[in-house]
Amino acid sequence: MRPDPTALTILETSLYAGDLAAAEAFYAGVLGLEVVLRKPGRHVFFRVGRAMLLVFDPTATAEAVDEVPTHGAKGPGHMCFAAAEPEFSAWKRHLEGHGIPIEAEITWPTGARSFYLRDPAGNSVEFAEPHLWGAQP
Amino acid sequence: MRPDPTALTILETSLYAGDLAAAEAFYAGVLGLEVVLRKPGRHVFFRVGRAMLLVFDPTATAEAVDEVPTHGAKGPGHMCFAAAEPEFSAWKRHLEGHGIPIEAEITWPTGARSFYLRDPAGNSVEFAEPHLWGAQP
Repeated sequence: MRPDPTALTILETSLYAGDLAAAEAFYAGVLGLEVVLRKPGRHVFFRVGRAMLLVFDPTATAEAVDEVPTHGAKGPGHMCFAAAEPEFSAWKRHLEGHGIPIEAEITWPTGARSFYLRDPAGNSVEFAEPHLWGAQP
Repeated sequence: MRPDPTALTILETSLYAGDLAAAEAFYAGVLGLEVVLRKPGRHVFFRVGRAMLLVFDPTATAEAVDEVPTHGAKGPGHMCFAAAEPEFSAWKRHLEGHGIPIEAEITWPTGARSFYLRDPAGNSVEFAEPHLWGAQP
């Protein structure tokens, strides 16, 4: 049986942050994401719909502590949340209301809009309308 | 209006690779993902269900060329694909058939299984059964 690549979905997205408490204050406190797992000094994991956003300390997670393969990237990463109107505009107002600067706003060739901000670790976080990449399968 | 964090989904996951051709050979050639956008030397983007896997050259994407905020992380990152049986086992056989070593196999407390491999850039890529993080919303 040849597996079907169009049936794959993304279950986990990772970002890195040296200050995990600041990351949790942003992703749980400001955005309101559910914390599913927390290992102080190592990682904090958040539920996003059917998927997960994993935030790791890049130095700690590069050291093996169990059978899970190590990793750990340094420097700003990027991820994007999808939100359809009226949620899309509500998120922008919500973040601005928390004093978080909107770094850029773009309208893409598909007509979808997105805006960008930085999380406390400097990662580039985007909010976009869901049709940014064209027709939904 | 307070936006609803439980309605958010992940639209884009990013990894970094210094050799984008090798990344494309793996994600498109071996996995079979659709290439949606390619900018040689800078990035190659793949469709994964309703979301996207973005692979960036970490040095090139740290330099501003337009209004899109820069980013770029170095060192191995991590992401996870979800696949339910019989696809889950078919992916493991498919990857082994391409000579790609399985670095680890784990059965989690939820009963979900996952296996790990490395992409050509050394990123930790996981395939997991979709119930890894508990009940699906």
